[in-house]
Amino acid sequence: MDDLQEKLWFASDYMEGAHPALMARLAETNMEHCAGYGLDVYSESAREKIRVACDAPDADIFFLAGGTQANACVIDAVLRPYQGVMAAETGHVSTHEAGAIEYGGHKVLTLPHEAGKVTAASIAACIEAWCSDENHDHMVMPGMAYISQPTEYGTLYSLAELEEISHVCHENDAALYLDGARLAYALACDANDVTLADIARLCDAFYIGGTKCGALLGEAVVFPKHDYVPHFFSIIKQHGALLAKGRVCGVQFDELFTDGLYGRIGRVAIDAADRIRALLVECGYELAIDSPTNQVFVALDDAQLAALSEHVEMGFIENLPDGRTVMRFATSWATRLEDVDALRDVLVP
Amino acid sequence: MDDLQEKLWFASDYMEGAHPALMARLAETNMEHCAGYGLDVYSESAREKIRVACDAPDADIFFLAGGTQANACVIDAVLRPYQGVMAAETGHVSTHEAGAIEYGGHKVLTLPHEAGKVTAASIAACIEAWCSDENHDHMVMPGMAYISQPTEYGTLYSLAELEEISHVCHENDAALYLDGARLAYALACDANDVTLADIARLCDAFYIGGTKCGALLGEAVVFPKHDYVPHFFSIIKQHGALLAKGRVCGVQFDELFTDGLYGRIGRVAIDAADRIRALLVECGYELAIDSPTNQVFVALDDAQLAALSEHVEMGFIENLPDGRTVMRFATSWATRLEDVDALRDVLVP
Amino acid sequence: MDDLQEKLWFASDYMEGAHPALMARLAETNMEHCAGYGLDVYSESAREKIRVACDAPDADIFFLAGGTQANACVIDAVLRPYQGVMAAETGHVSTHEAGAIEYGGHKVLTLPHEAGKVTAASIAACIEAWCSDENHDHMVMPGMAYISQPTEYGTLYSLAELEEISHVCHENDAALYLDGARLAYALACDANDVTLADIARLCDAFYIGGTKCGALLGEAVVFPKHDYVPHFFSIIKQHGALLAKGRVCGVQFDELFTDGLYGRIGRVAIDAADRIRALLVECGYELAIDSPTNQVFVALDDAQLAALSEHVEMGFIENLPDGRTVMRFATSWATRLEDVDALRDVLVP
Amino acid sequence: MDDLQEKLWFASDYMEGAHPALMARLAETNMEHCAGYGLDVYSESAREKIRVACDAPDADIFFLAGGTQANACVIDAVLRPYQGVMAAETGHVSTHEAGAIEYGGHKVLTLPHEAGKVTAASIAACIEAWCSDENHDHMVMPGMAYISQPTEYGTLYSLAELEEISHVCHENDAALYLDGARLAYALACDANDVTLADIARLCDAFYIGGTKCGALLGEAVVFPKHDYVPHFFSIIKQHGALLAKGRVCGVQFDELFTDGLYGRIGRVAIDAADRIRALLVECGYELAIDSPTNQVFVALDDAQLAALSEHVEMGFIENLPDGRTVMRFATSWATRLEDVDALRDVLVP
Repeated sequence: MDDLQEKLWFASDYMEGAHPALMARLAETNMEHCAGYGLDVYSESAREKIRVACDAPDADIFFLAGGTQANACVIDAVLRPYQGVMAAETGHVSTHEAGAIEYGGHKVLTLPHEAGKVTAASIAACIEAWCSDENHDHMVMPGMAYISQPTEYGTLYSLAELEEISHVCHENDAALYLDGARLAYALACDANDVTLADIARLCDAFYIGGTKCGALLGEAVVFPKHDYVPHFFSIIKQHGALLAKGRVCGVQFDELFTDGLYGRIGRVAIDAADRIRALLVECGYELAIDSPTNQVFVALDDAQLAALSEHVEMGFIENLPDGRTVMRFATSWATRLEDVDALRDVLVP
Repeated sequence: MDDLQEKLWFASDYMEGAHPALMARLAETNMEHCAGYGLDVYSESAREKIRVACDAPDADIFFLAGGTQANACVIDAVLRPYQGVMAAETGHVSTHEAGAIEYGGHKVLTLPHEAGKVTAASIAACIEAWCSDENHDHMVMPGMAYISQPTEYGTLYSLAELEEISHVCHENDAALYLDGARLAYALACDANDVTLADIARLCDAFYIGGTKCGALLGEAVVFPKHDYVPHFFSIIKQHGALLAKGRVCGVQFDELFTDGLYGRIGRVAIDAADRIRALLVECGYELAIDSPTNQVFVALDDAQLAALSEHVEMGFIENLPDGRTVMRFATSWATRLEDVDALRDVLVP
Repeated sequence: MDDLQEKLWFASDYMEGAHPALMARLAETNMEHCAGYGLDVYSESAREKIRVACDAPDADIFFLAGGTQANACVIDAVLRPYQGVMAAETGHVSTHEAGAIEYGGHKVLTLPHEAGKVTAASIAACIEAWCSDENHDHMVMPGMAYISQPTEYGTLYSLAELEEISHVCHENDAALYLDGARLAYALACDANDVTLADIARLCDAFYIGGTKCGALLGEAVVFPKHDYVPHFFSIIKQHGALLAKGRVCGVQFDELFTDGLYGRIGRVAIDAADRIRALLVECGYELAIDSPTNQVFVALDDAQLAALSEHVEMGFIENLPDGRTVMRFATSWATRLEDVDALRDVLVP
Repeated sequence: MDDLQEKLWFASDYMEGAHPALMARLAETNMEHCAGYGLDVYSESAREKIRVACDAPDADIFFLAGGTQANACVIDAVLRPYQGVMAAETGHVSTHEAGAIEYGGHKVLTLPHEAGKVTAASIAACIEAWCSDENHDHMVMPGMAYISQPTEYGTLYSLAELEEISHVCHENDAALYLDGARLAYALACDANDVTLADIARLCDAFYIGGTKCGALLGEAVVFPKHDYVPHFFSIIKQHGALLAKGRVCGVQFDELFTDGLYGRIGRVAIDAADRIRALLVECGYELAIDSPTNQVFVALDDAQLAALSEHVEMGFIENLPDGRTVMRFATSWATRLEDVDALRDVLVP
C-alpha cells in the first residue's frame, strides 16, 4: 500500500485484520441465517467452549466489540453508585479510556504500581484507608479491584500474587476484575503459571481479549458465577455495546477456542518477542522493563532511535530523565519470523 | 445449520453476514498493516467517498460499531446537559435502546407519530410549549430533533417534509439528527425524493447505516459542517465506541461506496419487498402499514398466522385490538428471489 | 415591601418563611454546638419522633434540602442502572425537575393519569408490557413506581388504591416510592383515609415534605425497612445534597413532629381551601378539578381572570381548549382567614 | 445540651447556627410573601451587593445550599463531557465529595500540592502532558483548574500566584474556578492580598461561602462574566440544588453583604485563630502547617493529645509517621474569646 508495508512492523498488536482461520470461518458461515444479538448458534458454541476452557460450567459469557466498553460495562454493572474501582495509576481504565469509567459515574481510585502491577498490600491499604477514615461516608468506597493480565507493561501476575489479591478483595467484599486484552500472550508465556481456570476461580469477572489476539474485533466477558450480574444484556445495550450481528464475535471466538488456536496464537507472538529480546540484549541494547510477554520495551539513545526508526515501526512509550527514549516492539499472531530475522541486520551496529 | 436455514427467512435485515463484496475486500486486505482507531487508509478513503456522495466536502465522518452507540454519542455530543432530544414515541431512541440516551443524562421528549413519522408542526409545538411555559427553566429544553429515514415502520420523509423539519429546528436553534440505520433502503426506493446530499444539507448530523445494509457491522456518522462537534473522537472513546481495528469499518464502507454498491444493495431489497407486497395484496392479505421500503407489515388473523409461521420466519410487531397480529417481512441485500417466489406457494390459500 | 404584599396572596404554598414555632426553635438553639451532617441531637430526636408517627421503629430517615434532590437520590439509590421509574405523565419527576432523573441515568416511564393519579392497573400494564415483549432486554425495565400524595393536582389516593398499588408493585418486584411534598395537606384532609403508618407499611420509600408544609426548607426521606438502601448517606453526599449544618432540618422536623404541629399546619390550609372552594361555587365559578386538599383549581373566562387578577395572586395552570384558563389558589399554614374573607368581596359579581 | 456544650469547642466552623444578625433578619422577614426559586427581592438585593463587592457589575450570581453541590453544578456546567478538572490531590473535589464530580461524568485530574496549594507550573505541566501525548484523544482533556481560597489546609494563594494561575489557565483555554467555602477567613487575614475584585477578575467562576462563614446554609456562586454559563438555573434544578424558598439564602447573603458583616465575621475568627497559634507556640507545641487563616494545625504526641482531648473538641487530621497526631482547631464568627482564654489554662503544662 505504502511505506507502512515496507518497514519492519512492530508498532502494535492490532495492525492486521484477523487470523486467517477466523477470516475463513467468517467467509464460510457468511450467508447462513443467524439470530441477532449474540443468540446465534456460533456465539452459543463459543460460550460453551470458553466455559470448558475456564472450567467454569455455569459462567455467563457475553461478547463485546472492544476493551474499553467491556471495562465500562462490567464496572458499571458490578459497582454500586457510591463505589469506585481501584486500579494501577498506569491501568488502562485510569489513563487511556478518555474518562469512560467516570462517564459511568465511578471514580478510579489509583494505586501505586511496579511495572504496571499492583499488590495485594496496596489494595488492602486502599480499603483500610477508607474503612478507618471517620469521614469515609464522604469518600468514594473501594468496591472493586481492576487488574490486567498481562499489564500495560507486559508484566504478569503469578498465581500466588493473584491468589493473594483475590483473597484480599473478597475478605473485604470488593470484587476482582481482570482485563485480559492481551490474555493470549500471558497464557502462552513460559513465565506464566496462571491458567484460565485459575482466573475463573479467583476473579468475579474478566474478559478474554480477541481484538489484540487474533480477531477482527471482540472481547469475551466472563462472569464465572451464573447470574452474578443480572440483566447484563440490558446493560450492554444501554452502553451501546450490543452488536446486532453478534455472530461476528461468536464465529471468531468459536474458532479461537477450537483446537487450541488461542494458545497457538499466543505462542507465535511470545516466540517472536523472546527472539527480539535476545537480539536486543545480544546487540547491547538495554531492555527498559523486564516483561516476558509480547511487548518488548527498550531504552534507546538518540542515535539508536534515529537509526532504528528508519527501518522499524515501533511504539513510543516515554522519555526518560536521562534523555533516552523508551520504545516498544509488539508482536502478535501476525508477526513474521522473517521480519524478526531482518531486525537482526538493523540492530547490528 | 438447522431449522433456521430451512424456512423462508424474512425475520430481519441483519441475519446474514456481510455482502460478499465486503467479505472479499476484508479478506484481501487482511494482512496489510493499518494504523488503528480509524486513521487507516481505508477509513480515509471511505470518508472521502462519502463526502463526495453527500456533496459535503468538509464533512467530519466517524465509523462506529452500531446504531445505538452512534445515537448516544451524537446526542451526548450535540446537546448541552440541560437539553433533551425530541423523537417519535416509537423512535428507536425512545423505546429500544435500553435507556442509552438517559444513561448519558438526556431526556427523550416524545412526539406523537403517524406510522413512525413526526411532523414539523409537532416539533414546533414541542419547542413552543417549552418556550411559552413560564416555568420552563424547571423543564427539559428541547435541543435536538431525532428522526429516522426510513422510520421504524418503514415510512419515508419526503424532501418537502424534511425541508420543513429542518427549517423549524434551525429557526429555533435546535439541531436536526437523522438515524439512517436502513438508509440504503430509503435511498433505493421509488417513492423517495431525498438524496444523501439533501440530508447533508438539511441535517446537522446523521448516520449512514452499514449493519443493516450490507456490512458485518458499522455505521458512518456524518457531521456535514467541519468541527460542528469538537473532540468527537474522544467522545467516541469515552463511550467505549472506538474500534481499535478501525479498518474493519473503513474497508467495508470504502467498498459500499465504490461503484454505487450501497445503492444496488438497497435496490435488491426494495425489489423483493415490492414483490412481497404485491403478492400479499394479490392473495387477499391486508397490509397494516403503507410502507414503501424494505419492511412489509401485514395484519394476520390466527389461522393465517399459524399457516404462515410454519414456513416463514417473520418478525412480531404487535397485537391489534381486533385480535389480529401485525407481523413484519424484512428484506435485505441478502434476500433471494427464489425465497420470494416460494412465498407465493405458501400464501396461496 | 411592595405590590406582592398588598394583593390577596394565594400563588403558592412556599411564599413565606417558616412556621413561627420553627423559627423560634431555630433561634433558641442557634448558638448550641451541634455535630454536622445530620448527626446532631435534634436530627436524631426528629428521626425518633417520625419513627413513632409512622409506626416504623426501624426506619432509616434522612433530611434533605428539597424535593427534587430527595426524588433523585431515592430513585438513583433504589433502581439498578437498567431500570426506570414509572410515573404519571404529569408527575413532578416527569415534567418539572429539569431532567434530574435522567441526569442520574434513569428513564421516566410515563403512565396515563386521571387528575394526577395513576392506577394499579396502569402500573401492572406497564410492567406486563415489558415482561411480555420478546425484546424487553432492549427496553428499560420498570423498577419502581413513583406516586405523589397529594398529587400535582391536589388529589388523593385512597387507602384501598394505595394497597392495590403496593400489591401490584411488590408482586412484580418493583419498589413503591411516594413523594409527600405536600403530605401535611393530605393527612389533614377529611377525605383522606391514609395515615403515615399506612404509607410506611405500603411503600419502600417516601418523603415527608417540609418546604411546602411549614419549614424554611427540608424534606424527611423515610425508608421504613432498616438498611433497605445501604450507604444512602454517601449517595446523598454524592448528589451534593448533604447539609453541613444538618441541624437546620433536624430542629425544624423535631418541632414539626412535636405536639402534632404537622397535623395542625395541614388543618389550617385545608380549612382555608375548603372555604375558598365553597366561595367559588357559591359565586358561580367552576372548579376545574375535584381536589380536596390545599390546592383549588378554577376555570376562569377572560373577564373573570382579568377581574380576579387585579386583586388576587394565583398560579397559572393551563389554557383550556374552550378559551378559559385554569388558575390555582394554594393555601398553606400561613394563609390568613382575613384574606380568605376578603376574597369574598372580590368574587362577588 | 450535654457534653458537647461543656468542652472548649474548636472542632469545626459549622457547629453553630447562623450569625445572630442573619437569624434576626430571617425572623423579621419571615412572614413576607416572596417569589420562589431565588427570584425574590432579597436575593436580588444580595446579588447586587455582591456585584458591588466584587466590582463585577455584570456578574451572574446564584445561591445554592452547599459547597459540594456548588462544585458539581459549576464543574458540570463549564466542562464539556470529554474534559476533566485539575485539582490538588487534597482538594475537596478530589477526596471528600463522595464522587460527586465523577457522578457528573468528569474525571478529577489530581495535581501535587504543597500544604494544599497547587502551582501554575503544575497546572501548566498537566495541560502540557495532555497536549504533547500523541494519544491524547484517548485521555481526559484538562478543561478547568479548581483551587480553594483558603485551601483545605488553611493556606492562601497570593495575588501573584493567583495571577499566574489565571494566566496559565486562560492561555490554554482552561477555565479557573475557585472554591471559597471559607472565603471570609481568607479575606480577613492579614497575610492575604487577594480581594473579591481580584478573584472576580481572575477566575471564571467562584463561590463565596456562607455555610462556614456565618449562614445557616448557602453559597453564592459567581460568574463574573454575564452569560458565561447559559441556562445555569436549569442546571441547578437538574442537580436538585434549587431551593424553593430561595429567600433563605437571599436574606442571609443580603445581610452578610450589608455594612461589611462578611468582613467582620472573618476578622473575629482570624483574631481567635492567631491567638490560638500564639498560645500553642508559647506553650511549646509544634504547628504542623503554616496556615494563617481560621484553621490551626498542631502536631501532638500521645500525652498531649490525651490531655487536650479531655477539655477541647478538636478535629482529627492525620497520623504522622513519627507517631504524633495532627489535630485541627477551627475558629469561626461564633468563637468566644473566653474559650480561647480558657484554652491557655488547658495548654499550660
